[in-house]
Formats: sequence, structure tokens, C-alpha cells
Amino acid sequence: MTAAAREGLARLPDLMIAPIVRAALEEDLGRAGDITSTACIPAEARLQAAFVARKPGVVAGLDCARLTLGALDPDARFEARAADGDAVPPGTVLATIEGRARAVLSAERVALNLVSRLCGVATLTAAYVARTAGTRARIIDTRKTTPLLRALEKYAVRCGGGANHRFGLDDAILIKDNHVAACGGVGAALKRVREHAGHMVKIEVEVDSLEQLREALDHRPDVIMLDNFALPDLDAAVGLAAGRVILEASGGVDLTTVEAIARTGVDYISVGALTHSAPILDIGLDAL
Amino acid sequence: MTAAAREGLARLPDLMIAPIVRAALEEDLGRAGDITSTACIPAEARLQAAFVARKPGVVAGLDCARLTLGALDPDARFEARAADGDAVPPGTVLATIEGRARAVLSAERVALNLVSRLCGVATLTAAYVARTAGTRARIIDTRKTTPLLRALEKYAVRCGGGANHRFGLDDAILIKDNHVAACGGVGAALKRVREHAGHMVKIEVEVDSLEQLREALDHRPDVIMLDNFALPDLDAAVGLAAGRVILEASGGVDLTTVEAIARTGVDYISVGALTHSAPILDIGLDAL
Amino acid sequence: MTAAAREGLARLPDLMIAPIVRAALEEDLGRAGDITSTACIPAEARLQAAFVARKPGVVAGLDCARLTLGALDPDARFEARAADGDAVPPGTVLATIEGRARAVLSAERVALNLVSRLCGVATLTAAYVARTAGTRARIIDTRKTTPLLRALEKYAVRCGGGANHRFGLDDAILIKDNHVAACGGVGAALKRVREHAGHMVKIEVEVDSLEQLREALDHRPDVIMLDNFALPDLDAAVGLAAGRVILEASGGVDLTTVEAIARTGVDYISVGALTHSAPILDIGLDAL
Amino acid sequence: MTAAAREGLARLPDLMIAPIVRAALEEDLGRAGDITSTACIPAEARLQAAFVARKPGVVAGLDCARLTLGALDPDARFEARAADGDAVPPGTVLATIEGRARAVLSAERVALNLVSRLCGVATLTAAYVARTAGTRARIIDTRKTTPLLRALEKYAVRCGGGANHRFGLDDAILIKDNHVAACGGVGAALKRVREHAGHMVKIEVEVDSLEQLREALDHRPDVIMLDNFALPDLDAAVGLAAGRVILEASGGVDLTTVEAIARTGVDYISVGALTHSAPILDIGLDAL
Amino acid sequence: MTAAAREGLARLPDLMIAPIVRAALEEDLGRAGDITSTACIPAEARLQAAFVARKPGVVAGLDCARLTLGALDPDARFEARAADGDAVPPGTVLATIEGRARAVLSAERVALNLVSRLCGVATLTAAYVARTAGTRARIIDTRKTTPLLRALEKYAVRCGGGANHRFGLDDAILIKDNHVAACGGVGAALKRVREHAGHMVKIEVEVDSLEQLREALDHRPDVIMLDNFALPDLDAAVGLAAGRVILEASGGVDLTTVEAIARTGVDYISVGALTHSAPILDIGLDAL
Amino acid sequence: MTAAAREGLARLPDLMIAPIVRAALEEDLGRAGDITSTACIPAEARLQAAFVARKPGVVAGLDCARLTLGALDPDARFEARAADGDAVPPGTVLATIEGRARAVLSAERVALNLVSRLCGVATLTAAYVARTAGTRARIIDTRKTTPLLRALEKYAVRCGGGANHRFGLDDAILIKDNHVAACGGVGAALKRVREHAGHMVKIEVEVDSLEQLREALDHRPDVIMLDNFALPDLDAAVGLAAGRVILEASGGVDLTTVEAIARTGVDYISVGALTHSAPILDIGLDAL
Repeated sequence: MTAAAREGLARLPDLMIAPIVRAALEEDLGRAGDITSTACIPAEARLQAAFVARKPGVVAGLDCARLTLGALDPDARFEARAADGDAVPPGTVLATIEGRARAVLSAERVALNLVSRLCGVATLTAAYVARTAGTRARIIDTRKTTPLLRALEKYAVRCGGGANHRFGLDDAILIKDNHVAACGGVGAALKRVREHAGHMVKIEVEVDSLEQLREALDHRPDVIMLDNFALPDLDAAVGLAAGRVILEASGGVDLTTVEAIARTGVDYISVGALTHSAPILDIGLDAL
Repeated sequence: MTAAAREGLARLPDLMIAPIVRAALEEDLGRAGDITSTACIPAEARLQAAFVARKPGVVAGLDCARLTLGALDPDARFEARAADGDAVPPGTVLATIEGRARAVLSAERVALNLVSRLCGVATLTAAYVARTAGTRARIIDTRKTTPLLRALEKYAVRCGGGANHRFGLDDAILIKDNHVAACGGVGAALKRVREHAGHMVKIEVEVDSLEQLREALDHRPDVIMLDNFALPDLDAAVGLAAGRVILEASGGVDLTTVEAIARTGVDYISVGALTHSAPILDIGLDAL
Repeated sequence: MTAAAREGLARLPDLMIAPIVRAALEEDLGRAGDITSTACIPAEARLQAAFVARKPGVVAGLDCARLTLGALDPDARFEARAADGDAVPPGTVLATIEGRARAVLSAERVALNLVSRLCGVATLTAAYVARTAGTRARIIDTRKTTPLLRALEKYAVRCGGGANHRFGLDDAILIKDNHVAACGGVGAALKRVREHAGHMVKIEVEVDSLEQLREALDHRPDVIMLDNFALPDLDAAVGLAAGRVILEASGGVDLTTVEAIARTGVDYISVGALTHSAPILDIGLDAL
Repeated sequence: MTAAAREGLARLPDLMIAPIVRAALEEDLGRAGDITSTACIPAEARLQAAFVARKPGVVAGLDCARLTLGALDPDARFEARAADGDAVPPGTVLATIEGRARAVLSAERVALNLVSRLCGVATLTAAYVARTAGTRARIIDTRKTTPLLRALEKYAVRCGGGANHRFGLDDAILIKDNHVAACGGVGAALKRVREHAGHMVKIEVEVDSLEQLREALDHRPDVIMLDNFALPDLDAAVGLAAGRVILEASGGVDLTTVEAIARTGVDYISVGALTHSAPILDIGLDAL
Repeated sequence: MTAAAREGLARLPDLMIAPIVRAALEEDLGRAGDITSTACIPAEARLQAAFVARKPGVVAGLDCARLTLGALDPDARFEARAADGDAVPPGTVLATIEGRARAVLSAERVALNLVSRLCGVATLTAAYVARTAGTRARIIDTRKTTPLLRALEKYAVRCGGGANHRFGLDDAILIKDNHVAACGGVGAALKRVREHAGHMVKIEVEVDSLEQLREALDHRPDVIMLDNFALPDLDAAVGLAAGRVILEASGGVDLTTVEAIARTGVDYISVGALTHSAPILDIGLDAL
Repeated sequence: MTAAAREGLARLPDLMIAPIVRAALEEDLGRAGDITSTACIPAEARLQAAFVARKPGVVAGLDCARLTLGALDPDARFEARAADGDAVPPGTVLATIEGRARAVLSAERVALNLVSRLCGVATLTAAYVARTAGTRARIIDTRKTTPLLRALEKYAVRCGGGANHRFGLDDAILIKDNHVAACGGVGAALKRVREHAGHMVKIEVEVDSLEQLREALDHRPDVIMLDNFALPDLDAAVGLAAGRVILEASGGVDLTTVEAIARTGVDYISVGALTHSAPILDIGLDAL
């Protein structure tokens, strides 16, 4: 990720992350707290440790680790050694921490659960982005996110060099096949939506065929999603649209197909797997 | 999953699932609600649809779909056609629903995000369980769960035929390497813990070598975790333990290695990937 | 409001209203509940009553009354006699209710506080809309809403025939004077934003002069806000834009000036007063 | 407001304001945060700005602005230049702030929404108070407050020189017409209430006529509300009560009628409009 | 408790009890739910059971049991056999229930924890009330309640025939010794408070001596609390007050002293132990 | 409590206590805050005070007092003069505080309500522990805790030298009489549970007779609860178990019977009264 890109990353304020961190800690501490550390570790003992990436990947969500530790030991020190968006080799120290040993050990798993998950999303996103280098296509996410973690996961997609599709049902209009069916066609649906949509809201429609694409083009939506189009149809679609509308390819996208899809000239490729099936990045906390 | 197993599945009461469903819906509806469906679909329109598995897998979490739909349309009908724990072929109808069309379409993504994720966990668990058939080893999860979804994911592990390790920092004692280091040895740690642990709490200790295993055995913990042991060392460990303690193998477990590990005779094999890296099961909502 | 308009009103699901109703009831009931009604009214007494508009106005938010009553008496009957979006003369019965007398009387003030406020917003909106009849201009709201009630108030604006500007800081980009200053000019700000903005997000920029408008037009934002433009400058702006961009007039708008502003040909006129200074519509609950 | 009055203002502790500020910020930040400021403003940029009253008014709620800014930038500086309760001319700097530019711009609207609303309530209250100067009558509020903001709005009434009626259904008894009807008369209602009311709770009864007033006086409530009494009847009521009970005039009160009502000698005049229909005070945030 | 008294009991609406019931259930169910019942009891098994008082006592809070059961099994039947406020002999069936056996067993402890605690408060209150029969003195509670359960416990005091003192810091003024010290005397404190107190709020002052009582009487508070007065001083205080003010005795009250205190003629006797030290009433759930 | 015991006390992190403190303060402050202190005490006044034990007892929960004060005055000083677990004579200063006088007085009651309650639990626990000195029996608590305060009360039991039974329905299996009845016997229940229980969960079964005890012993649960056994039966039970299983005596335990029960040789004695009927420890806040 370039410095310019990182500058524009749209980081989330702590205010938006802290409630998730707190809820995750409460989930893990339960009613009795960390009974192992209390039994083993003297109250005054201190610990220095490092978050270390065990595999190569892209960093995302270090603020989660900082806030998790801070929630258990407000006086602990957290020092980031990498930045969200960085691609790092195995063995990279992402951050060092120092604080009360009981707090460090109690925070470890929650911090790792959040960070390794977000790094996993960023890393998978970066893999897709890399496959589409040299094309105009940008990799985007979907609403297929982990419930309650959408803001964080969409942030991780940005860290991986991807871009975000809409954040929810309310911030953009996306007319899907069921909507089309209920309205009696792509054109009818777009007409109906046009009447009701606010002027600050973009309108996208999903089409399943070149025929539907032609019908959609007549109504000038902001974006057309080409759902499960074969490569030749994607080619044809790009030709038909002729730059008058943004084209998003969707469906059947994986790391083996994404490059060919990108080469058709579509503007965006949406990949649900970025958030619904990304394996975590293996990160550990090593005592120093 | 056998009928007997299903009977003992320890289902979660709706009370425990409903707040997650509600929060996930609020996350998706945002401040303006589903602006697409409201614009496209008449208020009085109704819709029948089916949740259909597109890939083979193991079912988990259908209650989530029922509660999501019910939260938006209390009068909607939800009919389960499969049961949590069922292994199903592609094309299986998991449930049919009927209700106000706007409610059905607004609920679709949240319901799928929850169910397909839980089915993913159950399906991956079942794959590990299948690899260990004929051995005494049971597949168990870890605390490497998705933040805020631990109860649901551990339930999904049970649906897949796995069992649960502890649910949090407070319901069992697990002495890990950092604790051992802080106490000056496995034996010292176990002695210290023994003084403070409650009688209703099981005690497990992690060992990294046969030497540490021997030291641990002298202190009779309930469970010993053999971390990253090579296969011959696992064999030796099973011999040393001689049935006096429960043995858990951990680390380096994947679908290619799990069978050999199971054949060493360990009692449990813990697999973080069940919850931290399971791809979703592809499920769709088809209008009928 | 026409039937078509009402059909597309984008009503809020109960799920989004109920938490506000509940919190408002808890605020009013405090720790001891309605000590007057309990002291005066026998537990089994029942009451029939009607919500009656004392002044002419536009209806909005009847669902709030229904949910407030239902929260205190799940078996109470609520029958709407008017619909959100209706313009009604004084004396109109908006809804009739029947239920336990204690519940009806305890719910009265919270229900009225919500409904009369939302009707007030809708009524003021309708007054602005009426002034602009026959022009292309649509009346829109702002983010100057009552904290914690934004979704409801923006819904009330729709009931009054207005449209919604963005719902928060996250669903559209609006570059304001301070942003322009920080970036060193309208063009620079638009360039910077263009690099980072998602494709599903509309971009608006505020300009203070015709000169800034020209600079903005070169960068093709989706919307340009003409802030505090005198009428001749609005005329000139409409000419300059020549339909290539959506124009929003803002600032200095009140019921005496809005018609002239609308006649300049701008597309939207945003009015903060719709939500920050609307007097309530006087509504009472009359026992029957 | 005199120094003595200000001393006794009964300020709200931060603990009571902070949850409202946080919820209002979450409402505005949504899932993606302030996408404009992040795109435009470098992360390290700082901003100095001033909250400036554009119109004359009475100050209330500066703590809300301080807490809003602090929630997004704990290290920001907030310096109050005016105090709650101050009457200020247009152009008055109410507070200056300095902090991270992104935080300042993200906090701006929420801070203004809260403060300008509370100043609006205080300013309208002060206008009523000014009209009643030289009389014994004090201006008081009602329960017709904005849902979820009652504590703040009642505080703003105090800032404007008004006093508070009860805060909810539970802290005082107010027998209204519907209660009277259900009990079969003012006397019967008061007798019934007297039996059940706690000794720490004041009792008020609403009367609609001099006849009801006489009946009420026989039962010695703490306060009698004269609802919609004509001026001559108010005069007569003050004579009848002869100082034995507190009299509150209610109904038909506006800025043109309040002085005459006050001159009748009633003790309190309650004005729902203070909180249900006060226009905001126009306040802006000017970059310095 | 007489029928008239019971009629005026000021029951709490379910809305106020349900969140406590829900939180208590979540506290008990933890992350895995009731693992015993799920393992032992078939999903479809049903159970009939009765809540039975094992000791004599006064009933309070049966709604808590109904709501606890209903939260786990909405279709369960709950039939009250006694009413809040009833004095019952040992062996009395308070309520019978029928529902899914797992739900009944999971709800049992939470329901009993709430009801037996509230019955304990009511029973102890009734004991104090019985000791003061034939005097004018009423037994009242204090703010020494269990954190988070104040509304329920004060309701239980009412069930036991007692009355409530203020519910919190905000609904009445009680000037205590530290306030008096800070103001430089009882008179000064009362003068200062009189200036700032709202007209709907009662004013009470604590005095430690007859001298302070005389000073207090000059300022006519609504209530004077006689703190730790010896019996002769209470006699003298009643004489001095001569019915012009309500007198509350406080301090050193227990079941052996309360009758003598009541015979001095004070109006109220406040007893912290009602809520801070009441033993529970022993109640069991017996399968039928 | 010895230093070693105190070291292993398993203190709760502030994160787990703070939400309870905050909710308790909100309960007491209501909507208007502490109207007495605001009226009486100048805003800038400061106060030094000491928490003093008026009776002998065992300390528990001082963190609650620290957090309560800190919630109202983040700059206040709190200095603990005793430690949780200390047995203290009357007159002992437990902690001194210094801060804004209004904050100190507003926090006083909530702080005392929490601390005096927890000290009451610890003190009663210590009394039971003292009675069993010289025996092997340890005093343990039950799930008969105050709803919403379980974690704090169980911590207080530890401060008093007791140990904890399970924390909820989910962290251990306890087969009670109703479960046994539903399964058709102790042995059947244990067999059924054994199939479903996780390996990290201990299993306890309740028996009512020596016959049931024999049946239970055959299935080797971790713990057997002897419910309401007479002393000779307890003796016999200890003989039968012969150290193969942990024995818990339950029922009919009070301060007069506990010693004899302990002398039978059981391992644990559970006492519901520790948390359901402990009187508070009398603690006051004295201005210095």
C-alpha cells in the first residue's frame, strides 16, 4: 500500500472499535475472569511481549490490539512496529507491549482473535488485488461479512488494497434478482426505484444476461452488476456499456479466475470470500 | 449425527441468540432501513422462499434464520426441513419461509450470514471428525472464535460432531507456556494453581516436551495438552500417561495430519481452524 | 401525499422504532412507575381513547403510538384512522385505542411526545413543499436532527413530501468549507476525495461563490451545494451548471424566501429548520 | 442569571451526559465513520476553532460540546468562554477548541446539534421569564420533552431561569382530567391518592373550573393546576386559594399572554413549548 | 394487606421488570446455557411444578417468576395462586407452572433468586409493621438497597405494608449531616436549599439534637429526620413539632426497639435493614 | 487471610466491575442528579472523608468504592488503607478519599451499598470458615446469589476465605433431584450426562440417601452432593466414598451445625446463606 493510499485509509475512530473490544473481553472473561493467570501470576508481575506474524500477510486492525490491552491495563505501553496496510514477511514484529503480566495474558486471545482475523481479510484481499494488477478492475467486498464486525472487516478490505461496496441496506440501492422479479423486469424496477430514491444515493442493478443489461442501460443506473457472466459475455458487456456506466462483475470469482475477469475491462469485481471465508493470518504473542 | 447425539446437542435457548440477531439486523438496516425493498416492493406483497444448500455440508444454526425473519415479520412462517447436525447433499432445502416480501428480502442477508457461517464451522468440524473415525480421539475447538459469536460457533462445532474445549478464561484452568515460564516450571505452576483452583474447575497444563510431560504427570492435572509434539513423541506420551490423565494433542493439525495424530491414541485433538478459518457453506435463498 | 408516494415511503420496521419507544418509556416511568395512575385507577379498569389532531397538519409516526401502547399493554387494541403522509384538518381522529386504563394513561405522554414531534416535522416540511409547487426543486433535510431521533425525523420529512439528504457522516461525501480550506481549494479537495471515495458513494461539494462553482464543475461531483447564494447568483449558477450536475441551494431558506429560490431552477433546497426548529403539531388523547 | 442562581444550577455530572453524546456520535458516524474528513484531511492535521453564537441567546449545555470533542480526541483542548446561564449577544465566542482536525470536523455537527438545541430551550425560557419580571410567577416546564433528552432539556430550562416541574411519572403525583373522570370527581381522586401516596411525594391536581378548584381546596393538595382558566377566573382562583396552596396556570400560554397570566398572582406558569417547540439557537463552528 | 391496600400497590409494569429478568438469566446461562438439563432432559419433555413457601412470609414479586419462565418458554403456563401482599403460612403454593421441562429447570434458580429475595424484604417489612400496630408510625425504607434492584425492592417494601422513602438522589431533597456541615448549620442549609429546590420536590433535613430540631422548625421543611434520638428526645421532639411537620425517626431501629419508637408519636420510622439485611424467604420449586 | 491466599484471590479486573458501578450510579442519580448536594454545596468545594467499619468484619470490594468515586470525579484521590480479605476491628479506616465535595457526597450511598454488601458476604463466610477450622471441610457458595451481582458476591466469598461452587448453569454439571427424577435414577442420569458432557467440565450429582450414594459411586462423578443428610449418614457417606470422590454436604447448614458437619470429614460444605441472607457490614463515610 502506498503512503498516499495509507493516508486515505479512513481509519475508524477508537469510539467505533472500543465497544467491540469491550464486548469481546466480557465474552472471554465471563463471570470469574482469567482464573489461570490469577492463580499463576503474581499481581505485581510485569511482562513484555511482541505480536509476531508467523506467516506473510497484510496488516490490519492493530488498533484492536492496543485497545484490548488498554482495556485491562490503562497504563500498559503499546508500540506499533508496523502499520495497517503494510505487507509483511513472516517473523515481522507487528507491535510490542509492556504491562501488568496478568493483563497482558488475559488480553492475549481477544487481541489475537481480532487482529489475526482482520489481517486475514486484508491478506486475502491483497492476493486478489495482486492478481488484477495492470487492469482497471478494483476488488470490492460485499455485505457477506461477519455479523457485528462489518465496519472492522470492511476496514480490513481497505487495508488490503480493496474498496468497499455498500455498508448496509440503507446507504445505496442494489436491485437484485428477487426485486427484479417482484417488479416485472429490470426496467420496471429501475423506474420504480428512480421515483423513490434519494439524490444522495447511488443506484445499482443486478443483471443476469446481456438482454437484461441492454434494458438496464436504457435507464442509466450508476452501476450495473453482471452476475455470473461468462467471460465472453463480460467482454460483450464492456463493449455495450461503452463507459457510460460502472460495471461490476460478480459470482464465480476466485483466485484462479479473477485475472481473466479483470482483463475483460470491468470496473469492479466483488468477492464475498474476502469476508466470509478468509482464513486468519497466523499471529502469535511472544514473551520477550 | 445420530439421533442420540442430536438429542444431547445442548441447543441454545432463543434468549441467547436473539440479541445477536437483533444486533446484526441493526448493523445491516442502519438508519434508513432497506431502501431498495421499500422502493421496489409493494407493502402488502408476500414472498415464499427456501433456504437451499448449494454445496454438501452439515447443518447448524437454523434457529438464527428463524429468529431473523421473525424479528422483521412476527407473523411469518418458518418451517425447518432439516435439523442442526444433519449432513446434507447439495440442493437440500434447509427451510422454507413465507411472509411479507419486504421483510423476507430485508432479512435474507443477515440470516444467510449467520447460518452459512455456522454451517461452515459444522462442515469443517465434520470433516475432521470423519478423518478420525475408528480412533478414540475426539475433535475439539479452542478459544480462537469470532469475537461476539463464541456461543454460536461452539454450538456449531457440536453440530459437526465435535466437542467443546473451555468457553472462556473463567470456566477451566489452562496453564500455557507463558504461565509456566512465569512460575518457573510445569510442576511449580501446577502446585500454585492447585492451591487456588476451585473444586468445580478442571485443570489442564500445556507441555512442550516429554520431559515436561513427566513433570506434569507427577502433579495429576485433569488434562495435559501436548503442544506441537511430533508423532513419535505423541506415541511416547500416550505410553507414559498410561490412561491416568486425559491427553490433548494440539498444534500442526490439519486435514492431512489429523488421522495420524488420532492413531497415536490421544483422547482429544484441538483444532483452532474449526472456528478461525472455516469457509462458509454456500447457502442461498430461492424465491418459490 | 399521493398513493404512489405513500407506497414508496420507506417505512421503518418496528425493530428500528421499538428501542426508542422503550427507552422513552423507561425515561418517563423512572424507578417507581406511574404513581398517579396506580393510586387513582383500579387495576382492572379499561379505557377507550382517541388521538386527535387539534390543529391542521401532516401525519407522521403513528407506529410510535402503537408501539408505546403495546409496550405497556400487549393486548391493547390500536386502530389507525389516518395514514402517515395524510394532510388532516383540525379535529381529525388519527387513531383509536382501547386497553387497560393504567397502561393507556401511562403511555399517553410518551406516545404524544413522539407523534406530535414527528407530525410537526412533517407539517413544516409540507409547508415548504407547498411553497415550491410547480418548480423542479425538492425540499430536503440536513443532519441538523435531534440527537438519537435521526431515523424517525428523516422519515417524518418523507411523510411531509420532502426527501432526505445523507443520513450520517458515512453514507455520502459532503466537502464543506473547512475541508476546502484544509485542502487548499475546491479542486484540490475534489481531486483528493476522488482518489479515496468508494464507487457506491455520492460526492457533493459546498461552494460559496460562482468562482468556486466553476472550479467545482471542472471536477464533476455528483452534487454541488450553493451555500448562501443571492438569488441572481443562484440564477447564474443554474445557467453555468446547465444540467450537468445536481444543484442544491442552502442557507437563508425560510418560508418567505423558499419560493423565489425554487424558481431559480435549482434541483434541491435543504432546510435545517425542518428538523431543528419545527414546532410540534398539537395532538391530544381524548377519552371516549 | 445571577451568580447565586448559577451556583445552584444543579449541573448534570458528565456520567449522565456522556452516554447521550456517545449514542449521538454513533448515530452520525454509522458503520464507515466520517468518510469525507478522512479522505480530505491528513491524519496529523490540527485545527483550532470557535463555537460562536450567531444570534442573541442564553447559553446551555456547553458540557455536551466538550464531551463530544473529547470522545473523538481525548487530547483535544476545550476552553469555555461563556457559562451556562449567560445571556450573550450575537457573535459571542462560547468556547474555543483545538485538536486533531479530523476529530474536530467529525464532532462538529453532533456537538452543535446538542448545544444549539439546549441553548434554544434556554433562550425561549428566558424570554418567558423576562415577560414575567416583577411578578411572583415562575416559568416551569412540562413532561413534553424530546424523548431521551429530558434530563438535558430540563437542565436547559434551569439555565434559562425557569424551574422544573416533575421529571417523570414517578417523582410526583399529578392527577389529570382523565384520572378525575375515572375516580368520579376531584375530591374522590384526591382522597384515593392521599391513601396511597408516599410522604416524600408532592400531590398536584388539575382543575378545569372554579367549582373544581373549591372541591380541590378542601383536600389540601400541595399544588393545584388551573387548566385553561380565563384571566378573570385566574384572578378569582388566586383569591379563593388565598395562599394556602401553590397555584400553577397551564394552557393557552404564549409570549403574548404570559405577562397577563403572571399578573393574576399565580405561583407558577407551565409552558410546554419550552421543550416541545423551541427553535434552536443558531451557533456555528468557525475555524480560527 | 387489605384489599384496598393491595389495589393501590403501585405494581411495576412488565416493561420495568423484564430487563432485570433477562440480565439475570444471561448471567446464569453464561455462554453455553444449561448444560445439565440439555444433557439429561429430552427436548420434548414437559414438567409441572409449584413454587412453594417453606416458611411463613409475605409474598412479593411473583411477576418475576412469571417473566423468567416466559423468557425461556413463551408458551409455558404460569398460574398465580397467591397475590403480592398476602401473608402465607408454610407450605403455601404461590404459583403453579407447566412448560418445557428444560425451560422450567433452567429458569428455576433465577426465578427463585428474585422471588425469595423480594419475599424476604416483604416479610421483614411486615414484621416491623406488625410491631407498630396501633401507632401512627409507618415503616419506610431507605436508599440502602441492592444496587440495580431498587425498584423491585421498594415494591417489596410496599407489599410488606411499608411505605417508600425517596427513590434516588433526584426525587426529593434530604439534607444530611455532611450537607449541614458544609453549609454552616441547619438553618443556613435550609435557606440555601429553599432558593434552589423545585416546587414539586419535598424537602427533608436530618437533625442530631433538639437544638438542631428547633432551628429546623423555624424553616418549615416538609419532613425532619431525627437521627439516633434517644426515646426521651423523640418524645420531646414530637412535642416541639406539634404536628407542624412530618417527623421521621432513624437510626438504632430494630425489631426490639421499633415499638417503643413508634409509641413516641413519630410519623415515620425508616429502617435500612428492610433492604440491606433481609434474609430471603425460603421458597422451593416442587415438581408435581 | 494469609498473604498467599490474598495473592491468589482472583481479583476482578475493573472492566468487570465498572458497568455495575455505572448502572448503580445511574439508578441513584435518576434524571435530575443529586439535587441536594447541588443546592447545598458550592461547585468548587472539596471534601476529605474516610470509609470506616463500624463493626468488626472482613473486607471485600474496595475497588467498588474506588470506581464509584472515580466515575463522578476522575481526579479524586482514593487511598485504600485495608485490603480485601483483611479481618478488621470496628473503627478501622478502610480507605480515605479526597475530591470535589459534590462528587463525594453523590457517590457515598452507591459506594456504601456495594462495599457494605460485599463485606457482609465476606464476613459471614469468614464466620463459617472459622467454625470449621481444623477440619478438611471448605466452605463454598451456591448459585443463590443476588441477581446481576454474582461475580462480585462470589469474589466476596473468596475474600472471606471460602471457595466458589460453579458460577452458572454452563460451567459445570450438577444433576439435581428433578433431573434424577426425569432420567429415572441417579445411575441413568449419570450415564446420560457422561455421554454428552465435555471433558473440561466437572460432573456433580445430588443424592438424597445412602442408597443413591452407592448408585452414584458406581459411576464415578467428580463430586457428590449429600443433600440434607443427617450427621450419622454423613459419617457413613464419608466411609463409603473412601476418598474416591469429592463429597459436598448441603442443606440444613447454619452457624450452629456447620462444625459438626465439618467433623464428619466431608470435603465441602455449601451454604446458600452466604449470598442470599448475609446482613451487610455496617460501614460509614466520615468527613475528615
